[in-house]
Amino acid sequence: MKNEFIPGRLNKISDVPGVTVGHKTIDRGEFHTGVTVINPTADFTFQNKPAAASFVLNGYGKSCGLVQIDELGTLESPIALTNTLSVGTVLDGLARHNVAEGAKHGMAIRSVNSVVCECNDGGINDIESFGVTREDVEEAFTAATDDFAEGAVGAGRGMVCHGLKGGIGSASRIIPLDGVDYTLGVLLLSNHGALSDLTVDGDSIGQRIANGMPECDKGSIIVILATDIPLTDRQIKRVLKRISTALARVGSRIGHGSGEVFIGFSTGNRFPTDTQTDLIPLRALHEDRMDLLFRAVSETTEDALLKSMLHAAPTQNREGDTVHSLAEYV
Amino acid sequence: MKNEFIPGRLNKISDVPGVTVGHKTIDRGEFHTGVTVINPTADFTFQNKPAAASFVLNGYGKSCGLVQIDELGTLESPIALTNTLSVGTVLDGLARHNVAEGAKHGMAIRSVNSVVCECNDGGINDIESFGVTREDVEEAFTAATDDFAEGAVGAGRGMVCHGLKGGIGSASRIIPLDGVDYTLGVLLLSNHGALSDLTVDGDSIGQRIANGMPECDKGSIIVILATDIPLTDRQIKRVLKRISTALARVGSRIGHGSGEVFIGFSTGNRFPTDTQTDLIPLRALHEDRMDLLFRAVSETTEDALLKSMLHAAPTQNREGDTVHSLAEYV
Amino acid sequence: MKNEFIPGRLNKISDVPGVTVGHKTIDRGEFHTGVTVINPTADFTFQNKPAAASFVLNGYGKSCGLVQIDELGTLESPIALTNTLSVGTVLDGLARHNVAEGAKHGMAIRSVNSVVCECNDGGINDIESFGVTREDVEEAFTAATDDFAEGAVGAGRGMVCHGLKGGIGSASRIIPLDGVDYTLGVLLLSNHGALSDLTVDGDSIGQRIANGMPECDKGSIIVILATDIPLTDRQIKRVLKRISTALARVGSRIGHGSGEVFIGFSTGNRFPTDTQTDLIPLRALHEDRMDLLFRAVSETTEDALLKSMLHAAPTQNREGDTVHSLAEYV
Amino acid sequence: MKNEFIPGRLNKISDVPGVTVGHKTIDRGEFHTGVTVINPTADFTFQNKPAAASFVLNGYGKSCGLVQIDELGTLESPIALTNTLSVGTVLDGLARHNVAEGAKHGMAIRSVNSVVCECNDGGINDIESFGVTREDVEEAFTAATDDFAEGAVGAGRGMVCHGLKGGIGSASRIIPLDGVDYTLGVLLLSNHGALSDLTVDGDSIGQRIANGMPECDKGSIIVILATDIPLTDRQIKRVLKRISTALARVGSRIGHGSGEVFIGFSTGNRFPTDTQTDLIPLRALHEDRMDLLFRAVSETTEDALLKSMLHAAPTQNREGDTVHSLAEYV
Repeated sequence: MKNEFIPGRLNKISDVPGVTVGHKTIDRGEFHTGVTVINPTADFTFQNKPAAASFVLNGYGKSCGLVQIDELGTLESPIALTNTLSVGTVLDGLARHNVAEGAKHGMAIRSVNSVVCECNDGGINDIESFGVTREDVEEAFTAATDDFAEGAVGAGRGMVCHGLKGGIGSASRIIPLDGVDYTLGVLLLSNHGALSDLTVDGDSIGQRIANGMPECDKGSIIVILATDIPLTDRQIKRVLKRISTALARVGSRIGHGSGEVFIGFSTGNRFPTDTQTDLIPLRALHEDRMDLLFRAVSETTEDALLKSMLHAAPTQNREGDTVHSLAEYV
Repeated sequence: MKNEFIPGRLNKISDVPGVTVGHKTIDRGEFHTGVTVINPTADFTFQNKPAAASFVLNGYGKSCGLVQIDELGTLESPIALTNTLSVGTVLDGLARHNVAEGAKHGMAIRSVNSVVCECNDGGINDIESFGVTREDVEEAFTAATDDFAEGAVGAGRGMVCHGLKGGIGSASRIIPLDGVDYTLGVLLLSNHGALSDLTVDGDSIGQRIANGMPECDKGSIIVILATDIPLTDRQIKRVLKRISTALARVGSRIGHGSGEVFIGFSTGNRFPTDTQTDLIPLRALHEDRMDLLFRAVSETTEDALLKSMLHAAPTQNREGDTVHSLAEYV
Repeated sequence: MKNEFIPGRLNKISDVPGVTVGHKTIDRGEFHTGVTVINPTADFTFQNKPAAASFVLNGYGKSCGLVQIDELGTLESPIALTNTLSVGTVLDGLARHNVAEGAKHGMAIRSVNSVVCECNDGGINDIESFGVTREDVEEAFTAATDDFAEGAVGAGRGMVCHGLKGGIGSASRIIPLDGVDYTLGVLLLSNHGALSDLTVDGDSIGQRIANGMPECDKGSIIVILATDIPLTDRQIKRVLKRISTALARVGSRIGHGSGEVFIGFSTGNRFPTDTQTDLIPLRALHEDRMDLLFRAVSETTEDALLKSMLHAAPTQNREGDTVHSLAEYV
Repeated sequence: MKNEFIPGRLNKISDVPGVTVGHKTIDRGEFHTGVTVINPTADFTFQNKPAAASFVLNGYGKSCGLVQIDELGTLESPIALTNTLSVGTVLDGLARHNVAEGAKHGMAIRSVNSVVCECNDGGINDIESFGVTREDVEEAFTAATDDFAEGAVGAGRGMVCHGLKGGIGSASRIIPLDGVDYTLGVLLLSNHGALSDLTVDGDSIGQRIANGMPECDKGSIIVILATDIPLTDRQIKRVLKRISTALARVGSRIGHGSGEVFIGFSTGNRFPTDTQTDLIPLRALHEDRMDLLFRAVSETTEDALLKSMLHAAPTQNREGDTVHSLAEYV
């Protein structure tokens, strides 16, 4: 990949100040699944909410929390990722985490918009036996750090992308504005695409690999976008809409069965829960500068997507076949 | 209320053939809450999905399952209602219910869009102690019937509407089309509105009752619409948009803090999961006849809203004050 | 009507500083129609765009310009109102006006999002003979003032509302925030509703008037909202969504055939076309204060709607029948 | 381009039965612009409306008619394409055409949703002098045929795509369903993209051509999709959403300044204006077959996009520089 923008220090979403990520990977009997949590801010998010938006590219998915993000334009909870059938359990765990955090900060929280996204790892994980517990969520939070692992970890444990092993990928890019270096970061959970469509740097590598192997074009992809550039929710949504160009560059045709859900937040605009004043100050990017972000999000997501595959070791699926790693072919 | 349409046999959503409703009411220590489930069809919904749509009038809410309803235009699961912080637990219970139902019908379900909506009963219920369990969902299903109770039952146990006791309300109306009697039914969970805004049949009764009482305009309302009239998802969404006229007739100004989420489904158009053919037959209402439904949904919802209040007995809130019933005043 | 808020000086949209309105009324042979223009700012709008949003309550309408308002969250042109079949001509006239204004300000405008909304006056006006000319738009601009007429003037000349004479109505309310008095103003073009549904202050007056008269529930309503309260586009859209409560209070069930299109703008947040900096400052209302605006927009719109009817003198329709004025009955 | 699907007889949108296209190309003094019209059906569209939907990928555009398409899910007028500032004139011409067609068919049309889309040809055409007349629209209709020209003709006369000459392109593919051959066709107006991003079959040809040439990433693309496959409006919208993958394959990052508006219609589902019955029959594609269309629309659009460039001869822009043709480089 030829880069137009410079990656951040770790080339991860955690290059955006305050963002940390934690995994709980579950390998227990037939369970090969997990939970990944993203803390959007270093302080208590509920008390001072970052601007946020969502964009649903393909809504064949079960993500929770988008309704309120769209209405209020803010994120008030960490985001958790897991498998399709464990959304309820993880939502319960995340709600309890949020109420407990509120208590620590002296706030009696009776309502909080916990956000959980999912992909289906039923090819590798015994998904229909419900292997995730409420406690796994808290363990993921305990493990949160800026230098987190990628590939077949956390929620990415059992994911398959373009017929090869997928999972967690992340990347970041530096965007200078008004003389200040800002960061745009992406974390994604890759579980979509057909093998024969896989394209790397314009090379149709998937058609060569697919030669003779069985194909299945189901799955999903979740993309979380973080930035400290001050954006309004509308501007965040515009950036999220351009994520499709990255998926297409890696070969996706945005399949019917693939829940493609994107959530973004900007820590450059915070909304205090309590305030003495009626009006609060914000900043926005001049709209004519948006192209910079549209190009950056495409490059960052493409990088994160390839990293999710390159970091994932080969795994056996439930039929006993090997799900190979892209790293074996490039 | 002067009616333009004739109510169904029970004047409940269950007048739509196949629809049943079950409650699990929880009164245990400080817990005064519950779960209500709506079965959209008498047969296995997942195998033969009714057309469906959602409309979010005010998205300050935590409902789950709307993303896929909007994308695919179908409902593949019963709908469960509960309190705000128990959505995760109920979603877990409902997912397990759906997987178990699949097993009974010989289907290995690895992905299902379970739908859970909520209102906040934290004024009466110790919501932040998480009083609902996964098993309560199954008990609600066991109790499902066509002649279900209204008022302070199931998910409605702890709800407050226009400053008085709210909860579950339901109504139905008969719509003759092409010489056949169809039914439009509504079930709602009322928990919104300010007392002084309450209007019954054009009479500002709320201003008289509110005289001296403290006011609070928080809350939400969930409305579930069912019909056997063959409608497309777009047409269902148009009908759902008119629900706001019913809320306004009872005095609502659609408050900021009120999550107002509406879901509708038509059993007159079913989508088989498996099929031998590529193309499947549907029917739609001629668009010029839509006014009939717009007027009917307004009347049905207004009736269901008043019934939710009239059937709800007075209750003590957590501060020890009485939440009165509308039945005391009319 | 009992008011909760205090009206502005003129009780018109022009109480919002900078807003002016001009009419060109056309009575020529069988033509009884016109054009109304709204200038959103006293300076050149294109150079410094107010925040804006739209909300389509019922999209059976032909308004132009909403696509870009929704994408960019700004308004860069005056808004023109006219009859359904003259949208093209008025759009042409408005585009030429905008290009000419650009030339006056030294800007070569090759692209501008001119905004035109419409209702159908075909019951009174010979609409299908295209009676509006491009020059009428410029004449409406020439006539622009803060103390404009209401009722059967400009685009309102041939409109019918709830079976009585409708047209242009306007109102405003004062909203104090952080110790400063802001203004929220509404201008609307009323052409919707059935007579027997008409309700004034909770009184079903329409049923008494309708007694024996033929009914027709077609038509539309356009509502333009202006304010100097600093709002983001998302917040403006939330305010616009509450306009339905005002329509419902006057009896509307939001008919199928009625194009109900609302556009709002805030001069409290301006976006300069050119800027030296990448980031620009904005302000927003603290979200918890939104209820103030939700109640104010409902009251202001209800007032403007009744004024549009009370100011409109009786008129003959094309069948030679009299379209009466509400003023004859109250 | 390697094809997965077989093109139709002409490899144009007119392979969909009933669809015809007409151009009026304007080369008069400094005017190098035009009008293109698409007839969706061979019979009177207003009387029997095809199912339709729109998708706005980037709303920096001035298209008219989308509001009603989205609300009612039908198309009731031909679609006209032209330059940005001539939308009003062309809308006027199209409205008059529709009223006149109504008169021919014995219908007094007082309301019709005429649809006009645009791109900005201001680099080649003296756009701000308004070179299109109302009569040009009718001339385009007179010229309508199935075997229409592509490239720098009609509305495509002055368009620039990826820094090279763009304009009108079209393609089609055959889709067998239930043993019957259906057709999916695309017509587009290409005017977007940066030269250095241009990619053909995975080859970054644009970077080689751009070497030393000045770049400008403004513009737009309009895509019209036609099919005789019976689809609901929701299904059409899903297909339209996948058009972005074709744009991305040719190198687009979906720029800020590019109005990207897509409209689709299905002649496989027609909605009669008048009907004796309340309910009308439709058909839909089984949702699991949608991937076929997602892949087909991507391939068809990519083909049409490249054809729009390959058919367009080099042209001088207003600065006297040559806008080259892709045909010079491949």
